[in-house]
Amino acid sequence: MTGLAIDRIHVGDRAELSRVASSSNVSEFLDSVGDRNPLHHDSRVAGTTRFARPIVPGMWTASLVAAVLGTKLPGPGCVYVAQSIEFTRPVDFGDTITARVEVVERLVEHNRVRFKTVCVNQRGEIVMRGEAVVLPPKVEISYAEGVTNNIAWLEWSRLPYQWATEAVTSWTRFYAAALGAWSASADSARSMTGQGPKTPTETEA
Amino acid sequence: MTGLAIDRIHVGDRAELSRVASSSNVSEFLDSVGDRNPLHHDSRVAGTTRFARPIVPGMWTASLVAAVLGTKLPGPGCVYVAQSIEFTRPVDFGDTITARVEVVERLVEHNRVRFKTVCVNQRGEIVMRGEAVVLPPKVEISYAEGVTNNIAWLEWSRLPYQWATEAVTSWTRFYAAALGAWSASADSARSMTGQGPKTPTETEA
Repeated sequence: MTGLAIDRIHVGDRAELSRVASSSNVSEFLDSVGDRNPLHHDSRVAGTTRFARPIVPGMWTASLVAAVLGTKLPGPGCVYVAQSIEFTRPVDFGDTITARVEVVERLVEHNRVRFKTVCVNQRGEIVMRGEAVVLPPKVEISYAEGVTNNIAWLEWSRLPYQWATEAVTSWTRFYAAALGAWSASADSARSMTGQGPKTPTETEA
Repeated sequence: MTGLAIDRIHVGDRAELSRVASSSNVSEFLDSVGDRNPLHHDSRVAGTTRFARPIVPGMWTASLVAAVLGTKLPGPGCVYVAQSIEFTRPVDFGDTITARVEVVERLVEHNRVRFKTVCVNQRGEIVMRGEAVVLPPKVEISYAEGVTNNIAWLEWSRLPYQWATEAVTSWTRFYAAALGAWSASADSARSMTGQGPKTPTETEA
């Protein structure tokens, strides 16, 4: 895994990751956050809803986006600033969900990257979409099986709490950008579903 | 657990849930979504970042908001439409995170409820904030330890895929509302941190 600094990130760069929404994966997720909503595990309750069956929690799906950002693009060392999420379709147990991210804006002076984010099922149907804003690492970091080749510690040690003050001002900018980009991103999010990634795909069960 | 229909939900209603960001909870979360970002588990990598230690994944924190919405307010049967997230501060392993939701708008004609959402740590510092939009159940549903007293199946059976078409139009409305409410909600999100909930608090380890 390589955590890319902003100078190696370009508009249009893409990454993706696929994962099966297995019962065991989802059970682990629900246990980890203490979510006892019967919609996700009790077929008697779920069977009476408009979905007529238990469905996978939306935040499990949304968390796949975080996994792509934190492991592939920008990769290790990036800091999550903001994420917007729209759930557009239920995810069934057993579905294979692919989370895709694509760089739509580089804000170099603030070391920020804005991504279009979308999750699709095995039929290519969009189940979630939105936007993410992250701070990539200040300098490139490589990581492989616990071996770290890090050249960043000196630079980062000079910026201990700068991120916090930066984050305070990011939200308004994020919303304004997202609002302006909505019409365009709604169309292009759909177009992403037919395009291959620039980085390798991995499927985990 | 009772899933409330919109006629029993009022602006200002609040609920919350607390949970410890223990190593075991977070490990389960990372396993469930396949997130191998060393920032969350490798102290050698994390020690070189601006945080100088491993931090809890932001989406674990965000998922506590979903747990409150799905189990307390509106409760079982609600459908998650959208969520905006801003991460404002890192969460450390061992922190106790309290997720709070407060109704800020009822859109009765669309059976939608908009919530202000905030997560705070054990010192009352905001670590995440944003807004959520959900569809509460059409009629009240009660659920206790696997025993369901459901009066909703007939009404819901008439609405099999209506949610999907509704969801398509919700995003623009959500963003417009969020943008307009931003100045007010930024202030009131802070004020939430000093207020007690209307529903019982539970802390789980």
